[in-house]
Amino acid sequence: MLYKIALEEAWNFPKGESLGGFQSASLAPKGVIGGDLGANLLDVHEQRLQQMDENGVEFMALSLVSAGPQKVPNREGAEKLALEANNALSADVMKRSERFGGLCSVSMHDPVQAAQELERCFTELQGFIGCILNDYQSAGPDGNTMLFYDGPSYDTFWAAAETLDCPVYLHPREATPEIFDKMWKGREHLAFSALGYANRLNMHLLGIITAGVLDRFPKLKLVVGHMGEHIPYDLYRIDHKLNRARFPDMKMRKDKLVRDYFGSQVFITTSGHFSTNALLCAVAEIGVDSCMFSIDYPFESIANGCVWFDEYVEASINARDLVKIGRGNALKVFERLAAGIHGLEDKSPAQCEVGGLKNGEGEVEFGMYNKSFEKREVRKVL
Amino acid sequence: MLYKIALEEAWNFPKGESLGGFQSASLAPKGVIGGDLGANLLDVHEQRLQQMDENGVEFMALSLVSAGPQKVPNREGAEKLALEANNALSADVMKRSERFGGLCSVSMHDPVQAAQELERCFTELQGFIGCILNDYQSAGPDGNTMLFYDGPSYDTFWAAAETLDCPVYLHPREATPEIFDKMWKGREHLAFSALGYANRLNMHLLGIITAGVLDRFPKLKLVVGHMGEHIPYDLYRIDHKLNRARFPDMKMRKDKLVRDYFGSQVFITTSGHFSTNALLCAVAEIGVDSCMFSIDYPFESIANGCVWFDEYVEASINARDLVKIGRGNALKVFERLAAGIHGLEDKSPAQCEVGGLKNGEGEVEFGMYNKSFEKREVRKVL
Amino acid sequence: MLYKIALEEAWNFPKGESLGGFQSASLAPKGVIGGDLGANLLDVHEQRLQQMDENGVEFMALSLVSAGPQKVPNREGAEKLALEANNALSADVMKRSERFGGLCSVSMHDPVQAAQELERCFTELQGFIGCILNDYQSAGPDGNTMLFYDGPSYDTFWAAAETLDCPVYLHPREATPEIFDKMWKGREHLAFSALGYANRLNMHLLGIITAGVLDRFPKLKLVVGHMGEHIPYDLYRIDHKLNRARFPDMKMRKDKLVRDYFGSQVFITTSGHFSTNALLCAVAEIGVDSCMFSIDYPFESIANGCVWFDEYVEASINARDLVKIGRGNALKVFERLAAGIHGLEDKSPAQCEVGGLKNGEGEVEFGMYNKSFEKREVRKVL
Amino acid sequence: MLYKIALEEAWNFPKGESLGGFQSASLAPKGVIGGDLGANLLDVHEQRLQQMDENGVEFMALSLVSAGPQKVPNREGAEKLALEANNALSADVMKRSERFGGLCSVSMHDPVQAAQELERCFTELQGFIGCILNDYQSAGPDGNTMLFYDGPSYDTFWAAAETLDCPVYLHPREATPEIFDKMWKGREHLAFSALGYANRLNMHLLGIITAGVLDRFPKLKLVVGHMGEHIPYDLYRIDHKLNRARFPDMKMRKDKLVRDYFGSQVFITTSGHFSTNALLCAVAEIGVDSCMFSIDYPFESIANGCVWFDEYVEASINARDLVKIGRGNALKVFERLAAGIHGLEDKSPAQCEVGGLKNGEGEVEFGMYNKSFEKREVRKVL
Repeated sequence: MLYKIALEEAWNFPKGESLGGFQSASLAPKGVIGGDLGANLLDVHEQRLQQMDENGVEFMALSLVSAGPQKVPNREGAEKLALEANNALSADVMKRSERFGGLCSVSMHDPVQAAQELERCFTELQGFIGCILNDYQSAGPDGNTMLFYDGPSYDTFWAAAETLDCPVYLHPREATPEIFDKMWKGREHLAFSALGYANRLNMHLLGIITAGVLDRFPKLKLVVGHMGEHIPYDLYRIDHKLNRARFPDMKMRKDKLVRDYFGSQVFITTSGHFSTNALLCAVAEIGVDSCMFSIDYPFESIANGCVWFDEYVEASINARDLVKIGRGNALKVFERLAAGIHGLEDKSPAQCEVGGLKNGEGEVEFGMYNKSFEKREVRKVL
Repeated sequence: MLYKIALEEAWNFPKGESLGGFQSASLAPKGVIGGDLGANLLDVHEQRLQQMDENGVEFMALSLVSAGPQKVPNREGAEKLALEANNALSADVMKRSERFGGLCSVSMHDPVQAAQELERCFTELQGFIGCILNDYQSAGPDGNTMLFYDGPSYDTFWAAAETLDCPVYLHPREATPEIFDKMWKGREHLAFSALGYANRLNMHLLGIITAGVLDRFPKLKLVVGHMGEHIPYDLYRIDHKLNRARFPDMKMRKDKLVRDYFGSQVFITTSGHFSTNALLCAVAEIGVDSCMFSIDYPFESIANGCVWFDEYVEASINARDLVKIGRGNALKVFERLAAGIHGLEDKSPAQCEVGGLKNGEGEVEFGMYNKSFEKREVRKVL
Repeated sequence: MLYKIALEEAWNFPKGESLGGFQSASLAPKGVIGGDLGANLLDVHEQRLQQMDENGVEFMALSLVSAGPQKVPNREGAEKLALEANNALSADVMKRSERFGGLCSVSMHDPVQAAQELERCFTELQGFIGCILNDYQSAGPDGNTMLFYDGPSYDTFWAAAETLDCPVYLHPREATPEIFDKMWKGREHLAFSALGYANRLNMHLLGIITAGVLDRFPKLKLVVGHMGEHIPYDLYRIDHKLNRARFPDMKMRKDKLVRDYFGSQVFITTSGHFSTNALLCAVAEIGVDSCMFSIDYPFESIANGCVWFDEYVEASINARDLVKIGRGNALKVFERLAAGIHGLEDKSPAQCEVGGLKNGEGEVEFGMYNKSFEKREVRKVL
Repeated sequence: MLYKIALEEAWNFPKGESLGGFQSASLAPKGVIGGDLGANLLDVHEQRLQQMDENGVEFMALSLVSAGPQKVPNREGAEKLALEANNALSADVMKRSERFGGLCSVSMHDPVQAAQELERCFTELQGFIGCILNDYQSAGPDGNTMLFYDGPSYDTFWAAAETLDCPVYLHPREATPEIFDKMWKGREHLAFSALGYANRLNMHLLGIITAGVLDRFPKLKLVVGHMGEHIPYDLYRIDHKLNRARFPDMKMRKDKLVRDYFGSQVFITTSGHFSTNALLCAVAEIGVDSCMFSIDYPFESIANGCVWFDEYVEASINARDLVKIGRGNALKVFERLAAGIHGLEDKSPAQCEVGGLKNGEGEVEFGMYNKSFEKREVRKVL
């Protein structure tokens, strides 16, 4: 489909590494993921935009590459990284605000300061449509202290996010050095995006929900990527096992289930998990209104994520729901997308050229996975 | 879920049989279907209402039992049956308009007269929210002539339906005597609702769509029951095989597919087809916005249809989409439901008591297919 | 996947048209379907084989193009067409029996003669693995008489099929001239494969099942194409509505449902209905063991059907079940495939190169819908 | 369905608590889960058997309640607990070997001793069909050392399991005291079965697979419960992110994916996760042959798990596949079930009374979610 909106798309700025942020050399040998990771993170208006054009992505919400300020155990360092990243990101997206927006970063050492930075981004800077938090905040002299955001002291932050109509995207990150050593030595491949990322973040997300944060701030919206970090598949067991007789002190509203928050306060994206079966399971469990397209560029390929969505998901889900997931839901969750600076409009399946409008001559063909009748077509780089 | 709306629910009036309408004795030995069919058709405010109360059905749209005027090959007889049925149905539903509405009947011998009767029902009578057509109109001296509504002469009727915001429910009926003799002798069990009904009606519906009726009347809405009369499962093949190179004279817009009309102009209901797999297939193919709950009482049991929806579908589909299918979509398709006389309001999953609000004490339990931990519970009549 | 087996693949022989069989010019203007229909039907070992090679189809079961002898209302003519077609088909497939097999044709005017021809094909000729029947047998002076095979006189035929371990493929065909005139005038596009074919054949199949044929011949196997001719989607309603209290004379075993015959005596193929949603619905309703791959060449494109199965279905269904549908089930249903002449063996997902064996260097990549990281690949003819 | 087999069913023996095993008082206030947990664990032949009878469970594989020997950081203590538990369990199941079998426990401090105990259970004792490991082995003076079984020293154990045809069930357990303090304080409700259990065990399982254990022991079978501990939903991402260019040292065969092991060496059960959507997602991703029924009694209710499977799953999945999941697959995975002592036989859907055999009078009804036509039935304890 045309006019897709992608929401979990990483970005970096030249000073990012020196300020203690993501070190692109540390993750993977250059080229392994598929491109020059460091360069791809820095680029917005060249190859990234070109690939968006080639793949029907109208808009990307960019965010500082994980773990951003959450990686910096020193408070001042974390705040400085957030501030400079936000200034740079605002400048970058405002060069082409009809195609880009930003999720601002905040240090979570001090909830009051985090709220202030959120307000600065939403009122003094331009181009921000939400905020990103990369799981727990590292703290302590050796970086092994983990700050979670489900305690009452963080209500200051959540209140600001609610007041500002700022959806908060919860993004995964790596383990602390201490736990990495204890759990993952010799099995580092499991520590990252294959499994460990989701295992940590789903706990943090459920901690925030079950602590009653969404009840105290009923307009607050949270978003998680990677098809919900395992949660949609496990929702039955989560709600079944979190029963109140057993856990009377759990603060979440006693008349609600975790599943009740999806679609109104909790949303997921498809970033980095291009599995049709998982998407269909998520849609069954949490509803089509709860699901949004995303890519996770440059850790994933724009072309690969878009071929999956435009061809494979389109072959498995009707046009109305496809366009909700690819675009429409994002406009409802991130309300600033539809406002003046970005100016994105709702579009019909026909406008997005899904369903019946595939023939250049104004006529329609259907069921053509392979356009040639006689020859097997192969995929070839444009 | 509470507050369900059911849309394909049969009704009769005392003079119905003598005016040439449905003969309840002809269908099945009394009691076979489960109740006293003739009596159940006549009743509105006694057992029907009581079962609605017991099963969480807030509202029923009633319609004259099939084939109504379509069964009467004589024009005057058909028009008289329609007129008297509409008068009686209006009176019946207006006794309790917050619980009942009507789909009016029309003779389709003469499209102009049909349009007039539609207008009379929608402007002079009260309580009508749509219209019902029982497949082809019988005509000719022996009743073997079949009038279909895809020809240009019926545009008068479709124009009236569009102007009046009157959705048209297409309901199946039996074959002509001639075709029955030729095709079904010795296999009568296949001629009716098991297969023959859908086989005939899906052809008629596709005839109307491919004749361009929905293009000429872009606000016209059609509804079919029985999970779409096979069509959602076969949509790929339908659209693939109706290609324009092969059928250049097909009048439907050349830039649209049959599937493109679902959700905006074509809708289905679950009447008489309580299959979770079929519903999930339909949702995948045509979208949750295209699907609405219905029962097909008294040919089906209110309790059976509601147990299926309230327990089985609820265990397989998220609360948001369940409530759309059970209620919300009906309010959008049949716009008069929300208006003054009926006054139905949109309701949330929590209001409909689905999802997380099952415990009488205000707390929630989840995952309890069987309330007792130690004993297998059995179903027992209230 | 490699090593696919396709079962509903049309073929013709030079004398076919003159003997009263399929007239390729009558169906569609040359080229509309995608190739030269008449030539493609005649060809086995040239372009057809080449496309099989290019698309991972190891084996095709060929059958005389519909409606074959069923189209010939004259008994002698029908029998002559069957005889000559079977002789020609045997010769054609025996030129390369490791890649081709045949479904023999029979005239169904006389069940005894049909049984004799079946026996001749299975004992005197070589290369036949089953039989094909194209819906009803045309009879009568004007061809408007329809002979159905659910009556007791056809037990002779069914007994022969059971004794010979000969699965019977039920294939759709067009309506009689009389019914065509009555029902389809002005809407011819609906009369054929878009809808009418399935509507007629599903009635015939259910007629045979409910007449108790499968009970009297418990080793007899029936196969239908086009994803089951609507039946899997409607099985709930079929079994629900065929209740014994209402139809006490229905001859099918009273302790069985229609759905109980699938997987042991009734099977479906994907021919001409390349819909992933429909396949998933069928698998849910009738089980993976009941479903087999087929194309419907040359009415469908080999490349299109294989791209669908190899790429789209493979992305939606696990490797074990994919290989059952693509190959393994066919070996169980058509037992002669595994025998001496054809010699087909069971193969694992790894042998069929599905799942984890995609990288030429012996390593595996996963999740690559688009091989290039940076460029949108397009499909291009080999 | 009748004749279900359940595989992850907890049991305890009187000396279990004093030997350092599970402390039933520690988990939950008595009665919260639904019954008297301590008593239910000890009971085999009274209430447990009665509930099996009432719910169509023919056979239970019992295992010492988690974490068993894995909970005991002291080697001698762990070995003693395993030895005494195995002796007691053998005696208990052999009282009724046609209804019960055992999964033996082993201390995993010393792989050689673990292999010896496995051999003792499988050759000197009677009634064992497999083995259970409760995630990591606690070790060290404070119990904070975690021993994982993916290292080469454990090959001795895996070799014994393969040689003995002993499937190994991997069961979750709680975190170490140290990690519990760091991660779960104030959010204890997440540490257990709602989330933490699966998050830990899925890492351990993937560690074993990616370490190449299944390649070195290609007949070894692993089983995990709780619908696969999140893994089926995340398989795309797991296989996509574990790419070899990035992790060249990963020992698993380079020509296989994690998904390739399901159905032949890795299997899942439904224990404690009675979600139809999750089961359908798992079936789509890993195939029906990979999925087996289980309950997780007495942490779950036998009646609840069986109502889910017998009514809800039966309404969503065809009879053939239902019986594979409910019984047939267990006979293939746990080969000793079919052998002399237990003597379980394969059964058809009809024998299990699913599908078409529901009417006591030998006739069949279908589609009756609610037996009464007129009254809403309620569930009532027998």
